[in-house]
Amino acid sequence: MDIFQLFAVGKVKKDSEIETIEIYEEYADALLGLDQFSHVIVLYWFHKNDIPEKRGVLRVHPRHNMNNPLTGIFACHSPCRPNLIGLSVCKILSIKANIIHIDSIDAFNDSPVIDLKSYITSMDKMKGAFMPSWATRPRPSRP
Amino acid sequence: MDIFQLFAVGKVKKDSEIETIEIYEEYADALLGLDQFSHVIVLYWFHKNDIPEKRGVLRVHPRHNMNNPLTGIFACHSPCRPNLIGLSVCKILSIKANIIHIDSIDAFNDSPVIDLKSYITSMDKMKGAFMPSWATRPRPSRP
Repeated sequence: MDIFQLFAVGKVKKDSEIETIEIYEEYADALLGLDQFSHVIVLYWFHKNDIPEKRGVLRVHPRHNMNNPLTGIFACHSPCRPNLIGLSVCKILSIKANIIHIDSIDAFNDSPVIDLKSYITSMDKMKGAFMPSWATRPRPSRP
Repeated sequence: MDIFQLFAVGKVKKDSEIETIEIYEEYADALLGLDQFSHVIVLYWFHKNDIPEKRGVLRVHPRHNMNNPLTGIFACHSPCRPNLIGLSVCKILSIKANIIHIDSIDAFNDSPVIDLKSYITSMDKMKGAFMPSWATRPRPSRP
């Protein structure tokens, strides 16, 4: 089986007033030019679920709602999954040195950040995107 | 330093005619309901770059084009980065058992797949997205 290693490159920091991505100083050089983008894709680790039981879950009722149909975890964004990768697209409010001030992120405080990617999209590709009705309803926020 | 382990859950398979995501059979149950979505987010591993030299790169000229400005790897999608995660949004053409037939993916044949997420978006969030000019030009395809 192929196994790969991930290193945390920063942390999600949030309190009642402000939400930020704090990149560790040794990776700060990797932020050059990010301020020219409106949005950033944040990949983080669902660190609270890093136990075999949670990584073995393959199907859930999305958003902890038993009224939503039983769904494979590759068809939803459940925080229980074989590889505990969370993905959020965040609006960039400002970047100062190694701190990115964002609008909001659906992740716990202190979640390890594993990658950032500028939000680049060819909207054409996603024209006519569709999804089941459970996925179109507003999502309850994760604390 | 926080270190996490990733396991391959499948592979990218492509030849001159067809491009697919082949999910390993032990994870096939996790695909339930994905066929109700038009698009899937594929996270894969840039396995050819899994050496310290490539994982230590923090700035590049995007798309191997020296005319593009020197840019932090968190501001682009370079396959050299501390955590070698590639991200593509793919159109789903069909799903049969553990094989997802997609339109195309910007990844090498045999790239390990590490996660799939259904493409769920609130387009509102990305309204008014902007990016620098290098990012708006068509991207040369990766073989």
